[in-house]
Amino acid sequence: MGFTPRRFMGSKPPKVSLLLPFLLPVLLVGGQGDENAALDNVVTERMAEESHRQDSAYLLIFIMLLTLTILTIWLFKHRRFRFLHETGLAMIYGLLVGVILRFGIHVPQSTNDVVLECAVNASPATLLVNVSGRFYEYTLKGEVSRGKDHQVQDDEMLRKVTFDPEVFFNILLPPIIFHAGYSLKRRHFFRNIGSILAYAFMGTVISCFVIGLIMYGFVSFMKVVGQLGGDFFFTDCLFFGAIVSATDPVTVLAIFNELKVDVDLYALLFGESVLNDAVAIVLSSVLLRFEKQSRQGAVHSAGEDSSVMPEEIEEWLGENQTFIPRSVVAYQPAGDNSHSFEAMAVLKSFGIFLGVFSGSFSLGVATGVMTALVTKFTKLRDFPLLETGLFFLMSWSTFLLAEACGMTGVVAVLFCGITQAHYTYNNLSRDSQDRTKQLFELLNFLAENFIFSYMGLTLFSFQSHVFNPLFIIGAFLAVFLGRAANIYPLSFLLNLGRRNKIGMNFQHVMMFAGLRGAMTFALSIRDTATYARQMMFSTTLLIVFFTVWICGGGTTPMLSFMSIPVGVDSDQEHSSSAVLDGSQRRSTKHESAWPFRIWYNFDHNYLKPLLTHSGPPLTTTLPACCGPLARCLTSPQAYENEGPLRDDDSDFILNDANVSSMYADVTVSTDASGSRTINPKHSSAGSFNDSRDGERDPVERDVVIRGTRLVLPMDDPAEPPTTVTLPPPPSPPLSEPHRHRL
Amino acid sequence: MGFTPRRFMGSKPPKVSLLLPFLLPVLLVGGQGDENAALDNVVTERMAEESHRQDSAYLLIFIMLLTLTILTIWLFKHRRFRFLHETGLAMIYGLLVGVILRFGIHVPQSTNDVVLECAVNASPATLLVNVSGRFYEYTLKGEVSRGKDHQVQDDEMLRKVTFDPEVFFNILLPPIIFHAGYSLKRRHFFRNIGSILAYAFMGTVISCFVIGLIMYGFVSFMKVVGQLGGDFFFTDCLFFGAIVSATDPVTVLAIFNELKVDVDLYALLFGESVLNDAVAIVLSSVLLRFEKQSRQGAVHSAGEDSSVMPEEIEEWLGENQTFIPRSVVAYQPAGDNSHSFEAMAVLKSFGIFLGVFSGSFSLGVATGVMTALVTKFTKLRDFPLLETGLFFLMSWSTFLLAEACGMTGVVAVLFCGITQAHYTYNNLSRDSQDRTKQLFELLNFLAENFIFSYMGLTLFSFQSHVFNPLFIIGAFLAVFLGRAANIYPLSFLLNLGRRNKIGMNFQHVMMFAGLRGAMTFALSIRDTATYARQMMFSTTLLIVFFTVWICGGGTTPMLSFMSIPVGVDSDQEHSSSAVLDGSQRRSTKHESAWPFRIWYNFDHNYLKPLLTHSGPPLTTTLPACCGPLARCLTSPQAYENEGPLRDDDSDFILNDANVSSMYADVTVSTDASGSRTINPKHSSAGSFNDSRDGERDPVERDVVIRGTRLVLPMDDPAEPPTTVTLPPPPSPPLSEPHRHRL
Repeated sequence: MGFTPRRFMGSKPPKVSLLLPFLLPVLLVGGQGDENAALDNVVTERMAEESHRQDSAYLLIFIMLLTLTILTIWLFKHRRFRFLHETGLAMIYGLLVGVILRFGIHVPQSTNDVVLECAVNASPATLLVNVSGRFYEYTLKGEVSRGKDHQVQDDEMLRKVTFDPEVFFNILLPPIIFHAGYSLKRRHFFRNIGSILAYAFMGTVISCFVIGLIMYGFVSFMKVVGQLGGDFFFTDCLFFGAIVSATDPVTVLAIFNELKVDVDLYALLFGESVLNDAVAIVLSSVLLRFEKQSRQGAVHSAGEDSSVMPEEIEEWLGENQTFIPRSVVAYQPAGDNSHSFEAMAVLKSFGIFLGVFSGSFSLGVATGVMTALVTKFTKLRDFPLLETGLFFLMSWSTFLLAEACGMTGVVAVLFCGITQAHYTYNNLSRDSQDRTKQLFELLNFLAENFIFSYMGLTLFSFQSHVFNPLFIIGAFLAVFLGRAANIYPLSFLLNLGRRNKIGMNFQHVMMFAGLRGAMTFALSIRDTATYARQMMFSTTLLIVFFTVWICGGGTTPMLSFMSIPVGVDSDQEHSSSAVLDGSQRRSTKHESAWPFRIWYNFDHNYLKPLLTHSGPPLTTTLPACCGPLARCLTSPQAYENEGPLRDDDSDFILNDANVSSMYADVTVSTDASGSRTINPKHSSAGSFNDSRDGERDPVERDVVIRGTRLVLPMDDPAEPPTTVTLPPPPSPPLSEPHRHRL
Repeated sequence: MGFTPRRFMGSKPPKVSLLLPFLLPVLLVGGQGDENAALDNVVTERMAEESHRQDSAYLLIFIMLLTLTILTIWLFKHRRFRFLHETGLAMIYGLLVGVILRFGIHVPQSTNDVVLECAVNASPATLLVNVSGRFYEYTLKGEVSRGKDHQVQDDEMLRKVTFDPEVFFNILLPPIIFHAGYSLKRRHFFRNIGSILAYAFMGTVISCFVIGLIMYGFVSFMKVVGQLGGDFFFTDCLFFGAIVSATDPVTVLAIFNELKVDVDLYALLFGESVLNDAVAIVLSSVLLRFEKQSRQGAVHSAGEDSSVMPEEIEEWLGENQTFIPRSVVAYQPAGDNSHSFEAMAVLKSFGIFLGVFSGSFSLGVATGVMTALVTKFTKLRDFPLLETGLFFLMSWSTFLLAEACGMTGVVAVLFCGITQAHYTYNNLSRDSQDRTKQLFELLNFLAENFIFSYMGLTLFSFQSHVFNPLFIIGAFLAVFLGRAANIYPLSFLLNLGRRNKIGMNFQHVMMFAGLRGAMTFALSIRDTATYARQMMFSTTLLIVFFTVWICGGGTTPMLSFMSIPVGVDSDQEHSSSAVLDGSQRRSTKHESAWPFRIWYNFDHNYLKPLLTHSGPPLTTTLPACCGPLARCLTSPQAYENEGPLRDDDSDFILNDANVSSMYADVTVSTDASGSRTINPKHSSAGSFNDSRDGERDPVERDVVIRGTRLVLPMDDPAEPPTTVTLPPPPSPPLSEPHRHRL
């Protein structure tokens, strides 16, 4: 238990020669290890500075990587080179930098760590070190490649470019997930809500268990063949199933956007991927708890680990038996490697799953609703900066609140995003609407590309990779079969109830679009302490690379091979159906199960008027007895738009691609306002209007949206279909922006 | 040297009872301190989770504070309640929360720290702890209230809400400073550049030394009286002078903006405060180095510290004499408390100051120029998201690059911001111009209010406050005199050279507006290890509170007392001077010293055309021999605007206040386009158009700016003044937006 300042000195000289005369004596002093506190203090400060400088340099590498990615992706977009998405590109650059860092640069032994050799029996989150009477606080950063002591020294630099995995969960994922919720096309989403929920909940669970079982078969086989270098329990297999069940078809959706693929297919894929992230993260955290119990149990019963002293623990467990609740006993494994489940434990886990999920859901919705109320009842919209600030802070607080309550922040943020888009967005000023959309778009873009480039880098910089060919083959097979077991049977079942069937070609595309991305990566890197986890992490990386490059790159050929209609404009399709056969769309709505119809009515009649400036005034929808309250809660604007015209304002968070397509198609029909000749101008191949080139004016966009809005009343069952015959806007749309000027 | 897991257990139960059955056994296990690694691992993970949950809760407090600030400030703005700025309000809320945390809440001993009792002789930045064969990496978080071991336990919670001081420098200050640079009104800034540089450089140095000397007098007196509880060297006094010399008149400027105070006064104050931040930070870091050397020297010669063994060190120093460069010898103090300066050392420090400052300056400008070139020569403007991303990343990389090179990141970021505004901004698409402005506006707003609310909180949560009445009185006096010694003599000297004199009332206002803010706080909290630093920190807090509340709140009365003209519209004044007496403005320009005239011409003729799409084509300004190169470098747009019309586009980064005032005043003159009747509509008292309520349309803003641009050619000496007679825009401004539509 000695204190050994082994690799204390020998820091490389700083880059700036100006500082050299000042640094040198300081650096030289430390090597002696005196009792001299003042000198050592100086050394410590200098060390911290040097460490900060290195950290800056390493972070700079990532910034440069992202800059390079942006420039290259511009070139690709400029040249209309469509088969490599920016995320795929970010990974390639990350890989290159990883190779360079790993093999190209050999930094001399420039470590300034001190190894405390004491055989401490725990690694707490915070450590107070008593340095000759002064206490220094240290925080746990993580485990470094265990045991391989000599290697710790070699890979100092690689370890430096490794981020704390929690960074992904606490900083990078939340904006991505929030953006997904905030930019959801809610109309199409709610139209397909039943199918989306089925795919997201049942599908993810099916996929998780199918993958888990297949992997368990493979792992058992590997054990027999002698290919397994460590423990791999059944819970590990299930955990692996959970993390690779989170799909992230960002690449595919970008292409869908560009090619204007069928909106229902888009909504199904997008909705499923957004929600299954939430399901997968909760599922994996429940399994993790399960596994921790199992690990503890395994120590108790099997005692395979060399460092474990089973008798002592058993003795201790005996002593403390009274403190252990019954539930833990239910988790005690039967002593074999499989960690057999008992019905009780599974039920309990299911309860936890539901609890965490619904808890996170409620927190997210609650914060969203609160933001909506605040923005409705204050005149904050006069100050867009304050409004945007409030919106940002409230959305962030959702995450923190959920985490502080032991819920899942990412899930809460997702539902907060959806709520914000559905209610709060209506209350924001135009300026804030743009600002918030653009802000989260930017954050999403940066975070996503950062994660993907880090993914590329980590293939080489991570030091405990375990690539096992058998396991990898098994994983690819399992992922394929798991996706198939999710999509095909569920589609079959859903088609029994759906009037608007999900065609076989749609099913194939959904199968094909099961890309794994940021969430899978973040879940797998979160814990890489054990052999099983390391093997999972390495395999997951390969799965992500493969799916993003191969499936992402093959989307366009796949679409044409499957003869999926491209160039379908969501709003053209929608408006034509609304105008030409409005009754058919009404039936689409009626197709939805009754809970959703009830929800539609409730939302439209009560929630929207309560939480936003739109919708019918509460005075008309609430019973007469609530008159005073209703008058108090209804905003003055609601009386202005007492008609059904503006009631689906909030469904119009469209991304720029839609706007541009609306611009291309619908303005003509709006100008004509009676004849409605729809004239699709763009060709599917030459269209270059993806979500990143919406350079058009907000005002113009407003014109188009307003124009469209007037011909597209939401066919609420409460309203007669005759609303489509409403008079055209009072003035031609191009003069409309003036109305908002003063 | 024993390992004592003293306060290892007893974590309060998590809030969610669902988790309780799972947590309990886990929590109970740890208390035994077995050799059981697996169990301890579980405990560690659980601990980390618990710690994460607490961190989330504490961060949530701050988010809630900011939300509250936003809501209250809205109320104030709404009620036109002007004497408390949002930063002052944030401080008050911070104070309240600090009081509650300190006195209201008593958390039971819920610490999960382990105190390593070994008398380690250094506290390195990174610590590797060998936990039974596995290495865990710990990073230094900072020193906790030294010695007071029992208190460490009590104030666990207060320690938790304390951020790493480096957060301010690495995360919060950069966006604030960048925004200051990016939103600089460069035209007015450059008009007064000479005076601003004088105030910022000479003034800050004067102020630093005046304050340092006065404080040294006070400290010496306190020593005599026996009021000094620890060491306080002359370098400490100078350091104190440097940190409180950074002014931050954000409150005053907000009111100036609202009341439309004279633009020259605004430019002087804003420019000085922006630049003196840079000067103060470099100055203080140089003094810090100085002081570290001194501290080291003091140990060597005086040996007052009880933990020091002077003989050993002297012996060691003797041994290693050959390795110590001569510069260190020059720093060895004469043995007294004053740390006497030697001329050589002062010169060297001055050299370092210049080196660091110019190094940071060059890095900032270099990155800005690179961004300008990239945005000019790529068609990135077709994709605003990519463009904004690139802009953000490049600006951030400036900071990291400077830090990695050992320069001052904040200074680099400032000059990068100015360069970006001056060149890159011209190349951006409209959408990106808005996005970048709004993004940094939001970041600035959040970071600033966060710092100020943290300031309020830390008055109660900081655990080593040293409030010494004598020192505080001395400090207030010194700050007052230091500011006076900066403003009045320099103004006198400047007035000798200036044609447009700085009046006495302006001088009084500048004197009065010497508020201390975020930078002073960040510099003083950076190091609070010694007695001297703690006393400085506590005193600085009081100075900030006093100046922000009293000076900030008294701005409006002060302005009327000093009979400073309010309601002067910067652009009205400007346009009227341009139109009515253009020759007089020309003379204002000629008033500038010749280096600035040379710079103007060089910038206009070569740099702007090279780096942006504006300015005259290089083919006309470069000598004929460079023809092909010039053609290659000139952008096609430059030929279109071959006239002088667009050459000062980039001087039009105006904040919304200006835009709104322009809207109010200048559109009329633009419509008339020949008569130019300027019609100031707004009253000074009722104007409610501060920078936070620019709700107008970007397009409309564009109209106004374009309209103004046409009547406001930059009166460059190379261009004849007749440019003011150019024809009006081809169409009336209200139809202009259509031009940009397609």
